[in-house]
Amino acid sequence: MATIKAWAAKAAGGKLEPFEYDPGPLGAEDVEIAIEHCGICHSDLSMLDNDWGMTTYPFVPGHEGIGRVVALGPQAKGLKVGQRVGIGWNASSCLHCDQCLAGRQHLCSEVIGTIAGRHGAFADKVRCHWVWAAPIPDALPYSEAGPLLCGGTTVYAPLEILGIRPTSRVGVIGIGGLGHMALKFCRAWGCEVTAFTSSDSKAEEARAFGAHHVVSSRDSAALKQLAGTFDLIIDTVNVPLDWDGVVGALAPGGKLHVVGAVLEPIPVVAFSLIMGQRSISGSPTGSRGTIDAMLGFAARHGIAPQTEHFPMNRVNDALDHLRAGKARYRIVLDA
Amino acid sequence: MATIKAWAAKAAGGKLEPFEYDPGPLGAEDVEIAIEHCGICHSDLSMLDNDWGMTTYPFVPGHEGIGRVVALGPQAKGLKVGQRVGIGWNASSCLHCDQCLAGRQHLCSEVIGTIAGRHGAFADKVRCHWVWAAPIPDALPYSEAGPLLCGGTTVYAPLEILGIRPTSRVGVIGIGGLGHMALKFCRAWGCEVTAFTSSDSKAEEARAFGAHHVVSSRDSAALKQLAGTFDLIIDTVNVPLDWDGVVGALAPGGKLHVVGAVLEPIPVVAFSLIMGQRSISGSPTGSRGTIDAMLGFAARHGIAPQTEHFPMNRVNDALDHLRAGKARYRIVLDA
Repeated sequence: MATIKAWAAKAAGGKLEPFEYDPGPLGAEDVEIAIEHCGICHSDLSMLDNDWGMTTYPFVPGHEGIGRVVALGPQAKGLKVGQRVGIGWNASSCLHCDQCLAGRQHLCSEVIGTIAGRHGAFADKVRCHWVWAAPIPDALPYSEAGPLLCGGTTVYAPLEILGIRPTSRVGVIGIGGLGHMALKFCRAWGCEVTAFTSSDSKAEEARAFGAHHVVSSRDSAALKQLAGTFDLIIDTVNVPLDWDGVVGALAPGGKLHVVGAVLEPIPVVAFSLIMGQRSISGSPTGSRGTIDAMLGFAARHGIAPQTEHFPMNRVNDALDHLRAGKARYRIVLDA
Repeated sequence: MATIKAWAAKAAGGKLEPFEYDPGPLGAEDVEIAIEHCGICHSDLSMLDNDWGMTTYPFVPGHEGIGRVVALGPQAKGLKVGQRVGIGWNASSCLHCDQCLAGRQHLCSEVIGTIAGRHGAFADKVRCHWVWAAPIPDALPYSEAGPLLCGGTTVYAPLEILGIRPTSRVGVIGIGGLGHMALKFCRAWGCEVTAFTSSDSKAEEARAFGAHHVVSSRDSAALKQLAGTFDLIIDTVNVPLDWDGVVGALAPGGKLHVVGAVLEPIPVVAFSLIMGQRSISGSPTGSRGTIDAMLGFAARHGIAPQTEHFPMNRVNDALDHLRAGKARYRIVLDA
């Protein structure tokens, strides 16, 4: 079996360097994918820096991979060699627990992340369990589809989980890699969409992505004027906000859904939840069914991230670009 | 028009004294109810003490009233003179806003509480808009039905709002006026029910109310052992808890629902919500449809609060009993 040629960091925060590893025999239920494109997600940086204390080195990032199936284990189901597939945050799950059997494989207690204790998709090839290799609809541009697999799923999932309807008013906080895709999904979902951004320079683009309204997220007075307005607010940023203002902006029955992992606890006022019948929730990417539904919805509505492309061998430049906050709006590495 | 004979406090925390007031002409859409029984809710005490800064004096408590319709305005609908009805936390709503028209009248921005700026049901009569006078099913014991109108609705509503199923595992924190009814509702709903109480003396009764399991809410180690277990936890107490432990006890997709208005903000760790796809929510009593559904469900399943009765003219003794934490488990005043 040929080795896999990847890009790996030897230590927290280190530069990525060429790295070859022997993946061993292909598992009976596994798929090997020849990577053609791979998005860069902010969590690749968080893992590279060991922000969450769970990174193992040498560390190969990459969990928004798009490529062709080049090998299938004998028990891998539903896929063909040569087929284009995507791999996202998760690479395997147990399949037999309550969550897996109920179609919530991403909540399996034994779910294994693509870059958690294993090597990711900044490489010529990557492997995963067949369940987590999602076929990419022909109508999606392959070179742009990578970021849908993690970031896109992450902001699409709340629409399904929370039963959001086309008549809902939705706010999106943070117009970056995740937020700009959230605007596109929410607009196509039929909602009235408001973008909250701290960067005035993004206002025009936010409208182009689908926002009907753009509000400065630093303007607490503007937030106060929107009190009681939103059925859903998706928070994509990982910094503390004017939480009372944000929760106060929810309509009766409104939901604040966080996908940005802010480290400081959010101080939630019980009275505000009770009187407004409000909720605060979160979710981690999505199930395999959610990924497929999201890909089909994106294909039908022409939803793709706005990307900047770097060749894979300029991965360190690409990571620096992301780290500097300059990505507009998602970076894709090309093999 | 005859005056109404009520019990009122002249100032925050004061004793209730006999108080008569002229209610004026009956509104076109209003109902006058001759009170036969009235539950005492902890929020009667909170309002009496002006804990929420919204009490007006003289203050007549009472928002779990049961009685007969004695007068109907010409536009009051669906009720007959002589019919037994109940009145809960709310006494009127605008009927024409989005929330009212969608059947979520309790979330109307103009909703008026029965004891908020108006006189409640510790009285021989009380009035409300016809929408908020709910017919009491014959199968419910009238003398025990009062506490269902506020406390019962409050703990029943989350089962509807959150889509809880008979296969769900539910925890109830605090086995008092609300919690003991929550145990009964959750057991009848078909769920596996765990009671969390700080009082060992309540364990046996908690089982009698419907709990399959009883856990000490002061035992953080026990809580830790239950990590990842509950689809729903209903928090009925108004004191800070081991919040990380409580949220950690939620299963994937689990929901913590607070109906106890703890004043200190709840510090919510975003990562815990995200990784477990969890939520924290709250709700204020329920809509008219929820009240009717709850009353029908209670009648069919023989659900009634466990009560202690006081005559209305011993209302101050009853309030002292509640204030001392001695109520087992809900007090009802009898006319």
